[in-house]
Amino acid sequence: MLIDRNPLPDGIDERLRRQLSFIAEVDQLKTVLRASPLAAAERRENDAEHSWHLALMVLLLAEYADEPIDVGHTMRLVIVHDLVEIHAGDSPVFDPAAVVGQREREEAAADRLFTLLPDDQATHLRALWDEFEAGATPEARFGKAMDRLEPMLLNWLTGGGTWHMPGATESTVRARESGVVAGSTSLGAATGRLVDEGIRRGWIRPDGPDLEPSSGG
Amino acid sequence: MLIDRNPLPDGIDERLRRQLSFIAEVDQLKTVLRASPLAAAERRENDAEHSWHLALMVLLLAEYADEPIDVGHTMRLVIVHDLVEIHAGDSPVFDPAAVVGQREREEAAADRLFTLLPDDQATHLRALWDEFEAGATPEARFGKAMDRLEPMLLNWLTGGGTWHMPGATESTVRARESGVVAGSTSLGAATGRLVDEGIRRGWIRPDGPDLEPSSGG
Ligand SMILES: [Ca+2]
Repeated sequence: MLIDRNPLPDGIDERLRRQLSFIAEVDQLKTVLRASPLAAAERRENDAEHSWHLALMVLLLAEYADEPIDVGHTMRLVIVHDLVEIHAGDSPVFDPAAVVGQREREEAAADRLFTLLPDDQATHLRALWDEFEAGATPEARFGKAMDRLEPMLLNWLTGGGTWHMPGATESTVRARESGVVAGSTSLGAATGRLVDEGIRRGWIRPDGPDLEPSSGG
Repeated sequence: MLIDRNPLPDGIDERLRRQLSFIAEVDQLKTVLRASPLAAAERRENDAEHSWHLALMVLLLAEYADEPIDVGHTMRLVIVHDLVEIHAGDSPVFDPAAVVGQREREEAAADRLFTLLPDDQATHLRALWDEFEAGATPEARFGKAMDRLEPMLLNWLTGGGTWHMPGATESTVRARESGVVAGSTSLGAATGRLVDEGIRRGWIRPDGPDLEPSSGG
């Protein structure tokens, strides 16, 4: 653990030691690179920046959720949603090899990471992560919609971004668009406009005749 | 604005265009570097990563707030608190030159940045930023406590970090510690242990005989 470099001094009780050690450990989220390019600099985005951006989007775009959402709870979900990637790594959606075994890697990572916390908080963070992954509550659906929309907007701003990856074609990009639609019809429609125009500009390739359209979310 | 590189396509209504343009613009927070070193990599932290870390700390450490806090509201405050630095820049606390005119620069930056949003949301984000800055509510005090504690923890993990800057001495570091105490007596005490031990290890210099102890927060 990162905290082992400079163990905390005496005089801090066990519960707080575990919490501070976890908070130190997750500094690593700042080093997990995503495939997405930043709009504001010539480098890829990391998971911590991405998670901050989603939280701000929840705050600003909540009015477009198809069902009423608890904004604070949705922010909790997106702040926590990528923590497991500290151990499991990012799995770029347009890289078919990266997604093999993703669920198993992330489950193992969750077990390893969250148990650093006091039991009650380990359970709480695991429940938030499970809720987000399952996408079965309005808050999880809207959080996931933000998680789909943000890289689409970065792709738009950078003239294509990850849409230029080998695995990205109209059908795989449309599958990502459907993840926005699932949380917000109106934001899904706006995303559809970005995709329509991305196709028209040649930033997104049509499906080849030898490709099965993707059915994933 | 960043969105001017690739203006949004037709078919997105004016309110949403302004919101998405703002969300694009604040991608720049990912490029505002702080003085603090990361624990997990050999580089400085940026404001977006820092804001994410504070939001997670609010979620995990709220039990230590001296007064009851609304966790969701406190998360909103920390997600928004550094946005003005997109235009005003970060003002390292141990760099006396950087803090000259900071408040005026940040006020001008807030006027310029938040007015990109629809009026109601410009007012809302400005109110969140003003609340954080004033530190007059339990949520703002706790958010500020996290904003002081996080770099202290990074300094601890990196063997001193910004405590090695020329302007940092025992009294200026103790003044930062008092910002943690103002939101949480128990987290303030733990921070005091990091500072005590940092002094003992020579990571924090004693005040020189020719220095007035700092009185700031
Ligand atoms: Ca700050």
